[in-house]
Amino acid sequence: MSDANVMTHLLDRLAEAGVEKLFGVPGDFTLAMLDDVEAHPSIEWVGCANELGAGYAADGYARLRGLGAVCTTFGVGELSAINAIAGAYAEHVPVIHIVGAPTTATQAAARATHHTLGDGDFHHFARMTAEVTHAQAELTAENAVDEIDRVIRQTLAARRPGYLVIPADVAKAPVPEPTHPPVEEAPLTAAGVLEQLRDAVRGELATARSIALLAGVLVQRMGAEPALHDVLALGIPHAVTLWGRRVVDESSPHYLGPYIGAVSTPETCAAIEDADVLIAVGVQFTDLMSGFFSQRLPARTIEITPGSVHLGLRTFEPIEMSDALEVLRDALAESDVVGRSAPDGGTPDPAVVADAEAVGATDGPLDQTGLWNAVAAHLQAGDVVIADQGTSFYGMGTHRMPTGVTFMGQPLWAAIGYTLPALLGAALAAPERRPIVLIGDGAAQLTIAELGTLIRNRVPAIVLVVNNSGYTVERAIHGLTEAYNDIAAWNWTALVSAFDPNGFAHPFTARTADEVSAAFAGHADRGGLTFIEAVVPPLDVPPLLAALAEQASRANSSSHD
Amino acid sequence: MSDANVMTHLLDRLAEAGVEKLFGVPGDFTLAMLDDVEAHPSIEWVGCANELGAGYAADGYARLRGLGAVCTTFGVGELSAINAIAGAYAEHVPVIHIVGAPTTATQAAARATHHTLGDGDFHHFARMTAEVTHAQAELTAENAVDEIDRVIRQTLAARRPGYLVIPADVAKAPVPEPTHPPVEEAPLTAAGVLEQLRDAVRGELATARSIALLAGVLVQRMGAEPALHDVLALGIPHAVTLWGRRVVDESSPHYLGPYIGAVSTPETCAAIEDADVLIAVGVQFTDLMSGFFSQRLPARTIEITPGSVHLGLRTFEPIEMSDALEVLRDALAESDVVGRSAPDGGTPDPAVVADAEAVGATDGPLDQTGLWNAVAAHLQAGDVVIADQGTSFYGMGTHRMPTGVTFMGQPLWAAIGYTLPALLGAALAAPERRPIVLIGDGAAQLTIAELGTLIRNRVPAIVLVVNNSGYTVERAIHGLTEAYNDIAAWNWTALVSAFDPNGFAHPFTARTADEVSAAFAGHADRGGLTFIEAVVPPLDVPPLLAALAEQASRANSSSHD
Repeated sequence: MSDANVMTHLLDRLAEAGVEKLFGVPGDFTLAMLDDVEAHPSIEWVGCANELGAGYAADGYARLRGLGAVCTTFGVGELSAINAIAGAYAEHVPVIHIVGAPTTATQAAARATHHTLGDGDFHHFARMTAEVTHAQAELTAENAVDEIDRVIRQTLAARRPGYLVIPADVAKAPVPEPTHPPVEEAPLTAAGVLEQLRDAVRGELATARSIALLAGVLVQRMGAEPALHDVLALGIPHAVTLWGRRVVDESSPHYLGPYIGAVSTPETCAAIEDADVLIAVGVQFTDLMSGFFSQRLPARTIEITPGSVHLGLRTFEPIEMSDALEVLRDALAESDVVGRSAPDGGTPDPAVVADAEAVGATDGPLDQTGLWNAVAAHLQAGDVVIADQGTSFYGMGTHRMPTGVTFMGQPLWAAIGYTLPALLGAALAAPERRPIVLIGDGAAQLTIAELGTLIRNRVPAIVLVVNNSGYTVERAIHGLTEAYNDIAAWNWTALVSAFDPNGFAHPFTARTADEVSAAFAGHADRGGLTFIEAVVPPLDVPPLLAALAEQASRANSSSHD
Repeated sequence: MSDANVMTHLLDRLAEAGVEKLFGVPGDFTLAMLDDVEAHPSIEWVGCANELGAGYAADGYARLRGLGAVCTTFGVGELSAINAIAGAYAEHVPVIHIVGAPTTATQAAARATHHTLGDGDFHHFARMTAEVTHAQAELTAENAVDEIDRVIRQTLAARRPGYLVIPADVAKAPVPEPTHPPVEEAPLTAAGVLEQLRDAVRGELATARSIALLAGVLVQRMGAEPALHDVLALGIPHAVTLWGRRVVDESSPHYLGPYIGAVSTPETCAAIEDADVLIAVGVQFTDLMSGFFSQRLPARTIEITPGSVHLGLRTFEPIEMSDALEVLRDALAESDVVGRSAPDGGTPDPAVVADAEAVGATDGPLDQTGLWNAVAAHLQAGDVVIADQGTSFYGMGTHRMPTGVTFMGQPLWAAIGYTLPALLGAALAAPERRPIVLIGDGAAQLTIAELGTLIRNRVPAIVLVVNNSGYTVERAIHGLTEAYNDIAAWNWTALVSAFDPNGFAHPFTARTADEVSAAFAGHADRGGLTFIEAVVPPLDVPPLLAALAEQASRANSSSHD
């Protein structure tokens, strides 16, 4: 006799897909399900301070593991997390949102149940969530196994969130011991299309005077990083979008720096825009990643997207990104176009000089330049660095990362405060790596409670909060000294101690670059969590952010663009 | 030449409706609008730590002022607040949610703009919000004035949220100096219907052997409290739902206590259910307010709802609640049925004895009973008390409030954490009144950052956090000692200090009822904010909550009810 029920089936499927942590906040409609979580052999419950934090944590987890999961209660819980789910949709992150709902009988009675609008309609929130998820199901005892498998399969395939509403009674409904195989994606690439693509690419390369490659974040989302690295190993000059930094090794001599349209350095700009043939792989241009759509790609661009390749007017599909990259690598290896291209994109880009070479005094008052130089100098292979949308993400934008660093942000959805809970998820996804979060003070106030969750889970992170007394990213756009860009003045180091009953965390206030360096340098020996409050002037803005903010301001004030 | 633009017109309309505070978090699509807020003569910006807190604050403000407003940025901001908007919808609270959006030109270009899903569709969030708001508009320069006026008018009339999306350029579009009168609700009551109702009520009362009245929260929402009080002044025995406590003076000798269906005391239950004729006014039964729909109202119930009166099979409408109550009062005054009713509902209800009479040692270890007795003993006329869904709301459920206390909770939507930001709004809505929030530790972790906003705004509140090491309301339902009902251990008094750079707050830890009393007693003399961490055993549950939790557990575990 099997003890399998709908919830244990779901947990088994999540586990098969690599999920070992389930983030969330309990509620009365989820409690009985959580018994099954507690009892599960490989999935562990990670209680968060609130649902938005739990959703962000699941997103951060998914970015390293390939799938994340968050569990909330009906209505109040799920809507508190919905901004995180929308962010995962925008940023192509597969997260399963599991919602515990009133029982089938309670729903059928259509009465004013707590956590509902009181109107007897139990489907408002599913309709809302359908706008920001790829796959959805409201489970019944009859459809649960099939629908769970479908939603997980579609979520993994689309790299976008799925949503499962489970009435409390349905969660406990028995299911037969599963005999069908675990969720698997069907291979996408159609027969014959690779040959057609090979011929077309060969033809294109034969007449190419030079070549360069631009990579975006979708390379990682589609699992095509190994195939990309095989291409780059041929010595192709390459750049990334700011969103896609994690997909390349920035220490490569062939790395050109970030391509951000007109906001790029002239050297990077020329290397990409003047290439005779450009390979763009997994690139999605967004306003902030393209200098407000100022990108100018060459006419001869081979564009590799999830599922298809565009070459001139021809489209080759369906085709897995990895398969397309393999064809490309073979064609490039046969061709001599790489030799005809400038091996390192021409003049070395001063914006991407190794950070150890950064100059300037490090014992004077800290500013944005000194801060990010100091941080960059302490990054190590294996670090997971998550930078919040603001001075952190753009301050690090032009610093070259060492080999083996994963640098992440959320530049399309761009929800400030995202990174602190996301780091919790990322750290639990890869406990062997050093987790680092870089975040502004205004942003940190949005999600500060999950600092407590980091400490509760004894995550040995480095948490750097930029204390510049407000929303400096907003100041740069509009309202430089207006009161609405001010925030509450908190004692950050005292706050850390308040979240830390067992002395796991070590708070520092840094007012010079040397103090930032010292806090980083002592992290391993101290153990525990290092918290650094980096005090910089309120109106100091990294140059890249200043340039983008000026464009954002123009976009928001003109009625025509 | 007028400087009036769409945003100033909106602000003027809000001000005309009594709004003096606009809660929110800035974002780049709202910044230019906030210049108009800063410049407005009577509306002040209240920056919150995050959007959920801002939404809850606007809700708390609206519950005392009749209208509240929150301003967030597109996508990331509005979705973070949407749980608060849904709560306002469920609980009949009129809140205007103002969202700053990308410009008309940016939207027309349909490109991957930050704070969108990247798919060129700028209407996902409006569709989501339509599920949880009563009135919505996406403004253009052409329709803005009319649509602003319509949405505010409908929001006020329905006592439910309205939603205004304002592209950044539209906010700055000029409007003619408004010459049309401010927003006004049309009178609802139809000609002739009052006469018909009068005859019907007279007939009903003529044969009534006894009468009682049950009042609910919608009396307050419909502005009918004065008319209700005129009725009650005739000496009618009356009860309230737990949701509607604020609408009566609980110190009245004719007050019967809360009616909660089968969970009521036997005396209250009998007084309501055995009345020959019951007047139910503004009552909406929800699961938690009715002992899971165990209410049994008399066959002869005169039901006064927003907009209509039901008497047997007859319905009288449209009719304002106040008008209906006036008819009722006149008919009651003519009748002698009040004399035939037990003046105080029979035997005094032991659950509503004055709290000064509460017995038991007050210097031993604190428990739930001692805690709520101590709190109740210190309540004063004029206090605004907001109690979170959990041991706070139900612990205070059976304590009789002094005259002039407004007791509020959120028992239908029942989002834990709601009350801390709601208190910010309520306190700023009525600065002459003493604001008190009662909240559990698990709940407080959801929205703790707004404690910083309370301190930043120098709100002289009493904040009582029940430290019982977790979600005790959930423990009572399921998972008594399970780890998923545990929370991070925080040092609460240290946390207060971290939010308090200027020494405005006074934190206390109370382990006895006497220590709770002492903290309350010294509040006025100390000035500033009093924070009380009340330490009680994790598994101690107020009796009323225990009874409801047992029913909730049954509802969640049975597949048929």
